[in-house]
Amino acid sequence: MATQVIILNGGSSSGKSGIVRCLQAVLPDPWLAFGCDSFVDALPAKMRDSDGGIVFAADGGVSVGADFRALEAAWMEGVVAMVRAGARVIIDDVFLGGAESQKRWQKALGGPAVLWVGVRCESAVAAGREIARGDRVRGMAALQADVVHEGVSYDLEVDTTRTESLLCARTIAARVS
Amino acid sequence: MATQVIILNGGSSSGKSGIVRCLQAVLPDPWLAFGCDSFVDALPAKMRDSDGGIVFAADGGVSVGADFRALEAAWMEGVVAMVRAGARVIIDDVFLGGAESQKRWQKALGGPAVLWVGVRCESAVAAGREIARGDRVRGMAALQADVVHEGVSYDLEVDTTRTESLLCARTIAARVS
Amino acid sequence: MATQVIILNGGSSSGKSGIVRCLQAVLPDPWLAFGCDSFVDALPAKMRDSDGGIVFAADGGVSVGADFRALEAAWMEGVVAMVRAGARVIIDDVFLGGAESQKRWQKALGGPAVLWVGVRCESAVAAGREIARGDRVRGMAALQADVVHEGVSYDLEVDTTRTESLLCARTIAARVS
Amino acid sequence: MATQVIILNGGSSSGKSGIVRCLQAVLPDPWLAFGCDSFVDALPAKMRDSDGGIVFAADGGVSVGADFRALEAAWMEGVVAMVRAGARVIIDDVFLGGAESQKRWQKALGGPAVLWVGVRCESAVAAGREIARGDRVRGMAALQADVVHEGVSYDLEVDTTRTESLLCARTIAARVS
Repeated sequence: MATQVIILNGGSSSGKSGIVRCLQAVLPDPWLAFGCDSFVDALPAKMRDSDGGIVFAADGGVSVGADFRALEAAWMEGVVAMVRAGARVIIDDVFLGGAESQKRWQKALGGPAVLWVGVRCESAVAAGREIARGDRVRGMAALQADVVHEGVSYDLEVDTTRTESLLCARTIAARVS
Repeated sequence: MATQVIILNGGSSSGKSGIVRCLQAVLPDPWLAFGCDSFVDALPAKMRDSDGGIVFAADGGVSVGADFRALEAAWMEGVVAMVRAGARVIIDDVFLGGAESQKRWQKALGGPAVLWVGVRCESAVAAGREIARGDRVRGMAALQADVVHEGVSYDLEVDTTRTESLLCARTIAARVS
Repeated sequence: MATQVIILNGGSSSGKSGIVRCLQAVLPDPWLAFGCDSFVDALPAKMRDSDGGIVFAADGGVSVGADFRALEAAWMEGVVAMVRAGARVIIDDVFLGGAESQKRWQKALGGPAVLWVGVRCESAVAAGREIARGDRVRGMAALQADVVHEGVSYDLEVDTTRTESLLCARTIAARVS
Repeated sequence: MATQVIILNGGSSSGKSGIVRCLQAVLPDPWLAFGCDSFVDALPAKMRDSDGGIVFAADGGVSVGADFRALEAAWMEGVVAMVRAGARVIIDDVFLGGAESQKRWQKALGGPAVLWVGVRCESAVAAGREIARGDRVRGMAALQADVVHEGVSYDLEVDTTRTESLLCARTIAARVS
């Protein structure tokens, strides 16, 4: 059964977006890419830093409220519907709830063949890259590095600590059927 | 029946994105926003300037190929599924095919209550704003200003030539049930 | 004496950047463009939201400290040196200190022929555009709309409330000698 | 004599910008950062893809014309004047002309204490990162990786192939007097 969805899970600044772009470059078919960043961009600005929405604390903590969860659930249904309609889709996400987050995707996905990929990066290295990229609240990388993987099951894991995005993407692509 | 989808159609630099952000600010409920720009961002980079993908010509012309159309159809299904799952969604699009483009959305949408909005802007004014924004190929605004509205039916039209985005948004919001 | 510098002063969301891009398009010679935004981009990230640096308050207020002022003074010297070296330069700034801010530029500029341009926009309209652009703290536009012009002398003023950026640029360009 | 200027030279996608942001974070004093990217942003849009300006070829080649060189010379004078006025400045550049490019900076700089830093990255790795970042013409990284260092003298060199930006920045910072 051909892989229809690739889900990458990893903490902030672990290198997910770079891997996604490389995957889109190396996979022979055209794959659509969506993720938590594009979802947050689709939200009303007023949901940022609001209790029902998404709050980025000064220490890098991220918390989301009921309105966020409701819209996210609908968005997940939509992404899954794109797959059912024939698109091959790469999703990058940050499983703030660990295994609970994975369950949400599993429930939404139902049938299609999914490749689950854990994107690891040593906490200190991710924290350094957070400084280098310069567009994220400092502290997110370290806070999320391990917690997002707790209890999550993967088909394969890649580690960007000492492996380039393109190489990680090739490893993942080799597992796409 | 409550409006579940707002579809804005207008040429490049007619002011759609500004109206979308204002709509998200003035509508009391949280609405998700998607559009042709976020769809193009989801495509592999290699589909830009490829025959099967999307080509931006030096004169501002835009042409899309079969792979683009196939993925776009799946994406439209997905956006509609978000609506069926309960999200209220604003879509901004450029109906390069005029009435044909509208039919594609109508077919995908099926049931939900849609508010169709035409976003007009005089060609010369849109061309000036294209220069002012500085991030678009010159010529797109003028080429698209009229053609995208050919044969399209609207519930209401706004004209940004002499009306601010926020005011246009308030006019649209007043029609949301 | 040929105009060597154009300085645009106006509040946040008054439309300065759009006018700058239009000026660069309509002026026959190539002009370099710098401004408070590019200066802030050159600062260390840690100076944002630090007392010595620049603080953007939740209500749209902006305050700057001693380190900011010291680096800004050096930056102004540098921009003036580019002019002395033969470049024609457009500067867009927000005179938070009104006449005092103008004096700082006058002192730094010394000799070269300057065209001083006030960029006006009615407070309510600028506040609406602030929502439409979506990338600024709300409140800045209204707070700055009038105060930045207090006591400042101009060679000409343009008003973007009901005049397009390109037209404003043409009016300014007609005064460039 | 205290270091007043740090000049980083390296090919496209060698990691200069990340090192600059890390340097600004780890250096105790506030340093301003400018570079070829911020210079190109200051140019009129019409100078992109024009013979007198800067042309990015489809194969990643970059060529610049007489107008570009004239404005760049004035810009360099300006950056040096900021240093003379007391600012500490980090410059990142791509020495397309190798030793010739270095000479231009040396001539402009005159007196102040400069730390010359070569930023190396193996060609294949830089080419991979070019794909991962997704915002550059493919081919630039490989074309520039070696040629920009030809005949250039450095106080120290860092290599991002297997060393993180933050670590490179710390190595450089340790040489700042």
